[in-house]
Amino acid sequence: MTSETRASLIKSGERLDDLQLNGLELIQDPNKFCFGVDAVFLSDFVRVKPGETVLDMGTGNGIIPVLLSAKTQGKKFTGLEIQPDTAEMARRSVRLNHLEERIEIVTGDIKEAAEIFKPAFFDVITTNPPYMPAEHGLRNPDSARAIARHEVMCSLDDILRESMRLLQDKGRFYMIHRPFRLTEIMIKMNQYKIEPKRIQFIYPYIDKEPAMVLIEGVRGARSRVTVEPPIIIYDRPAEGYRQ
Amino acid sequence: MTSETRASLIKSGERLDDLQLNGLELIQDPNKFCFGVDAVFLSDFVRVKPGETVLDMGTGNGIIPVLLSAKTQGKKFTGLEIQPDTAEMARRSVRLNHLEERIEIVTGDIKEAAEIFKPAFFDVITTNPPYMPAEHGLRNPDSARAIARHEVMCSLDDILRESMRLLQDKGRFYMIHRPFRLTEIMIKMNQYKIEPKRIQFIYPYIDKEPAMVLIEGVRGARSRVTVEPPIIIYDRPAEGYRQ
Repeated sequence: MTSETRASLIKSGERLDDLQLNGLELIQDPNKFCFGVDAVFLSDFVRVKPGETVLDMGTGNGIIPVLLSAKTQGKKFTGLEIQPDTAEMARRSVRLNHLEERIEIVTGDIKEAAEIFKPAFFDVITTNPPYMPAEHGLRNPDSARAIARHEVMCSLDDILRESMRLLQDKGRFYMIHRPFRLTEIMIKMNQYKIEPKRIQFIYPYIDKEPAMVLIEGVRGARSRVTVEPPIIIYDRPAEGYRQ
Repeated sequence: MTSETRASLIKSGERLDDLQLNGLELIQDPNKFCFGVDAVFLSDFVRVKPGETVLDMGTGNGIIPVLLSAKTQGKKFTGLEIQPDTAEMARRSVRLNHLEERIEIVTGDIKEAAEIFKPAFFDVITTNPPYMPAEHGLRNPDSARAIARHEVMCSLDDILRESMRLLQDKGRFYMIHRPFRLTEIMIKMNQYKIEPKRIQFIYPYIDKEPAMVLIEGVRGARSRVTVEPPIIIYDRPAEGYRQ
């Protein structure tokens, strides 16, 4: 790709980030939601076997499919995104990285995902969903950032209900979320037949509460969960460090 | 108490353990179930306010009430134990420590606890229940060890159902259990209106799965859980150490 073509893929106000992985780059709009460490932790936690088919629900700028395309030998990654301009930006990142054969970005609503795709079609579903309930003090519920952070456009129920329909038997579901919602998450996963099988807490400091939790569920599995060794970002006490 | 009286409290085959806490001692029978680190972790995790009333379900040799009587200013601790000889041994430990005013050991069945005690009577319920399902490869289901380790005499449902009835509104429930049953525990606690509010994982090594999980539930609380900082017993990798 010539530098002219590259330049034509990036719009005014957008920026190009080097993902530090196989030369991959990602187009982001600083006025919208930019990916954080959550996406990186999730992509490390997800297990995709060679040849498998993966759906990322609420893919945003496409960071999860782009990272997984490099980290795994999955055959096909589909990113579902409700906001047309965000989906269009993600498509440009796919072209920029020459990943059109493996990644497809679909504009559509998570709440209708099971009508958009074939039932039981996917081996793996990933999602980095909004963490906060919709009513949680929102000033501007229509903004792209609000949609990424709050359950404005879709709830945990929507994600799990559609995932239940779209995952094949024993298919795997991967999510990163906030620990304070763990009870609700485990109850709803069990209700939607996506049994929690593996969870891992991410502790920013060895003496602090975890900031995030990674969860693997398996469609139709029996109830038995493995809690993985802790991820501790700074292996020292928080005391004395400014946060 | 003279040494003769002390001696008369300990039966042949039993041993006397120094609890390293305010001079407390505990009578144990090495042929039955002896307390482990679980009881110590649980007693550190439990919060009892001055003047509160506490029930320990399945108290065994009485380790939890004895430790809590020293660690807290709770007014009254009741230990419920189904095995008459174990309950009798626990009563002798209470006398040995001159704790008859604060600790009472009641012989009775957890499954009928809500008939033994008044409804909504307790501020706090503690339990170090059997970890393993009843069917989990038992050779001798009648032995005191099997009863302590396997759900022969009572299930998680029995404990939570009776606790729901015996805890007052906003009363607190404390349990130590195995992480592999976490989903089931959280679902059942929610069903029995004892909402998980605080959980803490105990990791033997920084790079290993947790061996135990401590859980605080609150009767009638809303769903929001705090995951506490990790307890890491050996703050170093397991590699290179024999386990």
